[in-house]
Amino acid sequence: MKNEALMQLAILEAGKALGRTHPNPAVGAVICHQDKVVATGFTQPAGQDHAEVQALKAFQKAGFRADESTRLVVTMEPCSTTGRTGACTDAIIAAGIPEVVSGTIDPNPSHSGTGFERLREAGIRVTEGVLKDDCEDLNLIFNWQMAHGTPFIAAKVATTLDGRMATRNGLSKWITGEAARADVHRWRRYFPAIAVGAGTVLADNPSLTARLEGDAEWCPIRFVFDRNLVSFKDRLPNLYSDKFKDRTIIITSNNHSSRLRQLEDMHGLRFWEIEDSTNDEGLGEFTSRCREEGISGVYIEGGAHVLSAFLKYRLIQYIFAYRAPKLLADSSGLSPFSGEEPASMQETVGLKTVRHASFGDDQLMRGFVVYPS
Amino acid sequence: MKNEALMQLAILEAGKALGRTHPNPAVGAVICHQDKVVATGFTQPAGQDHAEVQALKAFQKAGFRADESTRLVVTMEPCSTTGRTGACTDAIIAAGIPEVVSGTIDPNPSHSGTGFERLREAGIRVTEGVLKDDCEDLNLIFNWQMAHGTPFIAAKVATTLDGRMATRNGLSKWITGEAARADVHRWRRYFPAIAVGAGTVLADNPSLTARLEGDAEWCPIRFVFDRNLVSFKDRLPNLYSDKFKDRTIIITSNNHSSRLRQLEDMHGLRFWEIEDSTNDEGLGEFTSRCREEGISGVYIEGGAHVLSAFLKYRLIQYIFAYRAPKLLADSSGLSPFSGEEPASMQETVGLKTVRHASFGDDQLMRGFVVYPS
Repeated sequence: MKNEALMQLAILEAGKALGRTHPNPAVGAVICHQDKVVATGFTQPAGQDHAEVQALKAFQKAGFRADESTRLVVTMEPCSTTGRTGACTDAIIAAGIPEVVSGTIDPNPSHSGTGFERLREAGIRVTEGVLKDDCEDLNLIFNWQMAHGTPFIAAKVATTLDGRMATRNGLSKWITGEAARADVHRWRRYFPAIAVGAGTVLADNPSLTARLEGDAEWCPIRFVFDRNLVSFKDRLPNLYSDKFKDRTIIITSNNHSSRLRQLEDMHGLRFWEIEDSTNDEGLGEFTSRCREEGISGVYIEGGAHVLSAFLKYRLIQYIFAYRAPKLLADSSGLSPFSGEEPASMQETVGLKTVRHASFGDDQLMRGFVVYPS
Repeated sequence: MKNEALMQLAILEAGKALGRTHPNPAVGAVICHQDKVVATGFTQPAGQDHAEVQALKAFQKAGFRADESTRLVVTMEPCSTTGRTGACTDAIIAAGIPEVVSGTIDPNPSHSGTGFERLREAGIRVTEGVLKDDCEDLNLIFNWQMAHGTPFIAAKVATTLDGRMATRNGLSKWITGEAARADVHRWRRYFPAIAVGAGTVLADNPSLTARLEGDAEWCPIRFVFDRNLVSFKDRLPNLYSDKFKDRTIIITSNNHSSRLRQLEDMHGLRFWEIEDSTNDEGLGEFTSRCREEGISGVYIEGGAHVLSAFLKYRLIQYIFAYRAPKLLADSSGLSPFSGEEPASMQETVGLKTVRHASFGDDQLMRGFVVYPS
């Protein structure tokens, strides 16, 4: 079998680990023996087996022994350091694997390349960079963290063909179809935290959980940006009252202290008090606090105020833009972003490493944000 | 070979005829003989060979004779009537072809199905509907004409991710990349006419010709909607002065008669005088006149005024929506459409028979417009 075909299988394996391995990357591995895939593995939750070790164990358990034909194909460079688990390179060497095919290099700058070195020193043939882009795409959050040390902040927007996210009355249910919305749930499962503004809470009363077929409902950290506590109406929104309410954190200004203590006591809610979460300093404080609390990625689902504030201060690193075959054709319809005034098309915010997908009649375009200089 | 694979080849053949066969449809045909494709054909310009006849001639010229293994695969039902050319069904029967595989039925209601009938009566095995959607997509204009008798009017928009077609200063060069723009040139080659507003002429000074690699520059009819003749500045725009200026028609109100005679004499330009081309009656007059003059399809490239007027009066039947990985994020940026006020997402203008494509980092979504009831 070709390396590319095997890597596709390894990528599918890695997909099974998405969102389940933070702070580790999701990795997939397959072992090809006498031209057949005989073992697979993917990263287990932190502290347990890495993908390579899982695949090697499956290989040995099935009674195989490595020979000249055996290839281990893995989406990311095997680790060479002993952390909570043993080094994968040691396990590969011990198993007598003669050839390793890898997708990406380890993005951790202090390990990058040393896994390959270790394997080569042991006489193992190493091929790097097979389906590199697709393998990198498996670990958007981890890769960003390794390169920048800051939380990976992504914006999700779903718009009509003409870029509107809601009618003039704020109605947005539903722009996209079921398949696109299911994709959003997959990303909700991947990101440790989701953020929305108070307006979205009031308009849509979302639960922001990941509801995926064949999987228990999953709740990430749910941030609500509500500087003036306007989302506290008589009838508490789902985010403040459902069974996951201890995973909701409200970002509010620091002049409601007595009210906050009361709300904390009454509803068991958490608050982050930030002087002004709509300016540079406030959003900087938010991201610092995410970092301190180990929240490595935030998926912002709207609305326009929150999206535009994060954009203004260049804090959005990635955009997921779904669009549906609908035309609002209303200049009073709501746009997801504002606040820029580019003088030409060369000075707009752009995307790179762009990926496309189709979900039924809807399209997704996603990529890393490139801010104009 | 499978019917689907053969039909793919027939579709590629038909593609060679796109825009070159009006008022006939573009059709492609391949002949599979002893499991090999040995002859191909596509519709020649009106009055010359249809695809089936071209393929049959190639088949015979190469010295083949039909046997039990021979299949003729054609994107549309063969014609059974003698027009400017003989009936294709007769040619197929005469050639002794035992099996015909077809994509779509003839959309002409007075012939629809009779070609298949004729073939079956002659003992030929007929399979219908192979890759039907893709085959129908080859003849958007012809199919519409057959079903409705009116010109097929399509809108093309190229926007940023957030649905803007130009900066606040009207700059739109370039939103999409080269590959998407080349696709626009393919559609310009397909549509008999293109329409723009005076604002677009002034802002972009386009030539609106189809410039395709390996093909001579092609100029469709170029309509300019310019009610008040504002596009006539000291320096004449390209559309009024280039070598194709006799293919430009200016739609203007009927209160400039003496000026028009002067412009006609001076520059050799053509005008259609319509009382008010921005209202229902005026646009109705425009489409009637297109019909009278045998203009079967119009591709509207903007700007917002023209697009919104055609949308308002429900005259746009198809939309091509390109989007690029750019974010304008400026609420003063230009939107392609306005004038609707949908109260919910269920009441928006929609698209059906939606098709997606990628051109580099850009996306295309296109489909038939469905107006809310």
